[in-house]
Amino acid sequence: MSEEMQAMLDHDCPEERRRLKQLMVQDPLFIPKWNLPLEEERELALERLKRLCHSGNFSILDFRSNPLRIFAAHECAALVDVSMATKMTVQFNLFGGTVLKLGTKRHHDLLLSGIDSLEDVGCFGLTELGYGNNAVCMATTATFDLSTREFVIHSTTPLAQKYWITNGATHAHWAVVFAQLLIGGENHGIHGFLVRIRDHSTMLPMPGVTIHDMGHKMGCNGVDNAKLAFDHVRVPREALLDAHSSVDAHGRFTSSIPKPRDRFLRVADQLLSGRICIASMMVSGAKMSLAIALRYASSRLCVGPSGASDTPILSYQLQQRALMPLLADTVALNLALNYVKERWSAVSGFQSGQRIQPDTAREVVILCCTIKPMCGWNLERTASTCRERCGGQGYLSCNRFGSLIGFSHAGITAEGDNRVLFQKAAKELIASMNTKTVQDRLRQGSRPPKITSQGSLTSLTTLRLLYVVRETRKLQHIAGIMAGIGKSQPDIFDAWMYHESDAVQGCTQAFGEREVLDACIRTYENSSGDLKSILYDITLLFALKRMEDDLSWFICQDLVPKNIASHVPETVRQLCAKISQQWQVIIESFGIPEGLIQAPIAGDWTRYNLADNAGEVIDMEF
Amino acid sequence: MSEEMQAMLDHDCPEERRRLKQLMVQDPLFIPKWNLPLEEERELALERLKRLCHSGNFSILDFRSNPLRIFAAHECAALVDVSMATKMTVQFNLFGGTVLKLGTKRHHDLLLSGIDSLEDVGCFGLTELGYGNNAVCMATTATFDLSTREFVIHSTTPLAQKYWITNGATHAHWAVVFAQLLIGGENHGIHGFLVRIRDHSTMLPMPGVTIHDMGHKMGCNGVDNAKLAFDHVRVPREALLDAHSSVDAHGRFTSSIPKPRDRFLRVADQLLSGRICIASMMVSGAKMSLAIALRYASSRLCVGPSGASDTPILSYQLQQRALMPLLADTVALNLALNYVKERWSAVSGFQSGQRIQPDTAREVVILCCTIKPMCGWNLERTASTCRERCGGQGYLSCNRFGSLIGFSHAGITAEGDNRVLFQKAAKELIASMNTKTVQDRLRQGSRPPKITSQGSLTSLTTLRLLYVVRETRKLQHIAGIMAGIGKSQPDIFDAWMYHESDAVQGCTQAFGEREVLDACIRTYENSSGDLKSILYDITLLFALKRMEDDLSWFICQDLVPKNIASHVPETVRQLCAKISQQWQVIIESFGIPEGLIQAPIAGDWTRYNLADNAGEVIDMEF
Repeated sequence: MSEEMQAMLDHDCPEERRRLKQLMVQDPLFIPKWNLPLEEERELALERLKRLCHSGNFSILDFRSNPLRIFAAHECAALVDVSMATKMTVQFNLFGGTVLKLGTKRHHDLLLSGIDSLEDVGCFGLTELGYGNNAVCMATTATFDLSTREFVIHSTTPLAQKYWITNGATHAHWAVVFAQLLIGGENHGIHGFLVRIRDHSTMLPMPGVTIHDMGHKMGCNGVDNAKLAFDHVRVPREALLDAHSSVDAHGRFTSSIPKPRDRFLRVADQLLSGRICIASMMVSGAKMSLAIALRYASSRLCVGPSGASDTPILSYQLQQRALMPLLADTVALNLALNYVKERWSAVSGFQSGQRIQPDTAREVVILCCTIKPMCGWNLERTASTCRERCGGQGYLSCNRFGSLIGFSHAGITAEGDNRVLFQKAAKELIASMNTKTVQDRLRQGSRPPKITSQGSLTSLTTLRLLYVVRETRKLQHIAGIMAGIGKSQPDIFDAWMYHESDAVQGCTQAFGEREVLDACIRTYENSSGDLKSILYDITLLFALKRMEDDLSWFICQDLVPKNIASHVPETVRQLCAKISQQWQVIIESFGIPEGLIQAPIAGDWTRYNLADNAGEVIDMEF
Repeated sequence: MSEEMQAMLDHDCPEERRRLKQLMVQDPLFIPKWNLPLEEERELALERLKRLCHSGNFSILDFRSNPLRIFAAHECAALVDVSMATKMTVQFNLFGGTVLKLGTKRHHDLLLSGIDSLEDVGCFGLTELGYGNNAVCMATTATFDLSTREFVIHSTTPLAQKYWITNGATHAHWAVVFAQLLIGGENHGIHGFLVRIRDHSTMLPMPGVTIHDMGHKMGCNGVDNAKLAFDHVRVPREALLDAHSSVDAHGRFTSSIPKPRDRFLRVADQLLSGRICIASMMVSGAKMSLAIALRYASSRLCVGPSGASDTPILSYQLQQRALMPLLADTVALNLALNYVKERWSAVSGFQSGQRIQPDTAREVVILCCTIKPMCGWNLERTASTCRERCGGQGYLSCNRFGSLIGFSHAGITAEGDNRVLFQKAAKELIASMNTKTVQDRLRQGSRPPKITSQGSLTSLTTLRLLYVVRETRKLQHIAGIMAGIGKSQPDIFDAWMYHESDAVQGCTQAFGEREVLDACIRTYENSSGDLKSILYDITLLFALKRMEDDLSWFICQDLVPKNIASHVPETVRQLCAKISQQWQVIIESFGIPEGLIQAPIAGDWTRYNLADNAGEVIDMEF
């Protein structure tokens, strides 16, 4: 059954995944090293990424033919080296994807093959020190100099420094620099410019480019983050990534996108697929955490009924109650992410060049801005809880949780602070209320089910309807407030930022949890046999545990009577006990080869501890 | 008002605290360094600890005269270097305290002055690889050899290796090794032996002692943890720490403690004060996190009503809702910890030599086993949430959250896994049900207040009574189940470990939250003026936010009507907004001198970012 379940979780690209994992199992370069100086950790991440790139299992051109291959590569990479995976996502999605989509033939001819081979390493210069939370106000300028037909890239203030720029501190040759495009005093909005930041042969910064290494971080220390500043750096007119906007030799600006704000959204488009990349990496991290923690819990003995150390801690209710809901959440989020990938791919528009319906495009934005936060927070809770439930052993770097906790924090605020993305999703949800899909859902949500017995809460259909009702009420609550305010910007800001923050966040949360539940139910309905039965339990645990977390709301809204609500925790406990019987099957379905787990506690940890290994796994057999 | 509030939070030893902090502000050795090799980080932690020790502000003898000085030193140390603080707690509390309390004159003469000066560095050899969760079953033996009148210390299996031993990998000369004492085939239970593990001049391991470095960890990398193994290491008869048990030259064993299990509890006694030490360090970490995050939130500008970046993020409801409950929890836990320290000191018995009432001793055990977990989890949530709410800036090591998250994880499972301590506390709570104090409380808890309006939930007296009712019901629930089972060990185990885990944990949680609330209310009642008013808000926020987290329980138990419960979140939001107006006063009351914060985002971070500092703060002015 594990194979069948793995195919369902992996969803796509089975051959590419198999090959990438096999490559990493076989090549000793991928054996984790923990006590490394910053410089070595960075070089190792780059070398590893090169091996993956040279294997030919993915390419920047996959964005045109099959973007799922790129997401799959992210999932595989995150199993092994979170820094390598982070460098991959910046090179292929943010930098490479932007060159591909915003650039034109001359940029493609110059760079696409070097992006695939890492002969041209790039970075994505969007975030600024002062405007990470308000990029549209960024202070870097690109001023067209008519006399030389060049753009002058300039960091106008200290707050305009490009900040957190991955690949910047040591490895990047290029940066896509986003800047306010100024021509003859007029601001045409934010555009992307291809700027060489280092000389290929000397690797020294180009004239006018200042690069500061950002140093040590709480995780992902193989990633070389930098501050970049530009002092009147001149680039040719052709440096503008001109798929949508261009400037001719006479300084005449033309754009297929009329509004400057829309231009900004278009140039930042790779952030959308970037959120899928991050979600993919976060799901892998959660799978790895659970695989390690559950294998250890099954082999770690503690006090049994007689007082002797003869009972695996996995048999304790405490351990099951802590880990099984996270196992269910991770499977559920994986299924939802698969759905988001499908939806995104359908509108990414490369395959068909078709015109995307605005409603569909909006729905995909909402899905991406919802799934990335949910997967990031899930890794944070999963890795932290697994660490805690593995005790001291979980604290050793070689057992990986520290690295995964650090990775989760990167995922939570990179490429959009989770909370800000949830706000954005809520705003778009309100804007989408007049669509047929949402109208249908709101109609369903206006007819709550009658909950008359504990049994009602083991029906997925009933639970799903309760989730729809919650989503409906939360959405209508916010929409009602906004409708009452009208169009006054200050009043809208006031409500949104000072009074209704919980409601806004809760609205997206309710939407997201219903989407995840839907994805689980669809998969469950399309499965059969033992797999169907395990999917039922997992879906039920996901739905009931999340309901337990918000139980007072369901009671206060008269959706679940008190006398039935009070039994929810007991049902959750029983499900935890039941699913814990199946832990091995589920973990095997994560498709992590033995050779990639590499955490001593997931294997023969007594044997590992016989040796003097200084906390490393290299050269160890266990 | 900050000074007054600081005096209340600090509670004791104001002069020692002031001197220790001043010393660390003035000595450049204490400026944080982040990108350090393991070896340097360890040496730095030791050097820093030496400076503190040589300042004469605390001594191992304070356990006799004023143990509060030792706890205060822990609080100060944790503000600066979490590794130094960890090494301190092992040297002074676990190692030093054990030598002081279990040793006799010969051990004191040999070691006490060297412990204070760090000329004799020690470790605490309790935990074993296989028995970290069941130390009473440990497999290290100390066999008395009558022919030579020596003890033979031996690690009988790989699982018997002493594991996680702080100070072991590089710095320790001595270990207190706990072992099963065997004389002529008879096991007299676990005793402590003073074993020299390194030669003072060469620093090489002594013959028969194997030391493995445990390597890189997710935090506290300045702590040199080791695995220690003993291969028939012979120590003289005088190595036994013989305050309670002794072996004479003829191999005759005598003990003032009749039962072997009680001997184990006595030798592990320093774990109790150790939990206070850890709680102290955790509270300091949470204060530091909040000081940094709130200072940044007040200076970090983001989108305002006009769209420009002109509004401090602290004014957003989202930021207030995330941080203010943690601020209230941290103050509340600090007040509760002060009470636990007082209670522990009163029974530590050094001052008076008085006989402690068993009921009082048990209550202190319960308090210590409750406060340490609560403070550890609070730091974990506080540092993680502060990190998240500071965005990318929170991810840089120099802004400290990564170090504090790592520290929290150490606190959560060191010196007793939090969940195991909560179990222990619950067990002792049941055993204490026949005492007058508990009986009185149960009587109060049998008369729930009538909650008839929202206003009822702003009365501290009413909230306190609701907390007592919850504690009463949860305790009686477990006690009822245990009473039904009787004395069958397997049945007790079954109920405790396989069925009632949530109830057991919930019981201690309810006890702990009521104790914290009591400590807040006592302090509130003894204060006046503005301080009284701020304490009221903080106490109310603590009580209501914790109630919100468990709201469905209060509703299902018919303690709070739905129509009133549904307003709790709004009241919490209003309190968050109100307290956020006072953030500066509260943060100042934490008594962290400007020179110890040392996180760029807590100061002029624009200026910090002008320089090429590679993520370090050394030589920086900001």
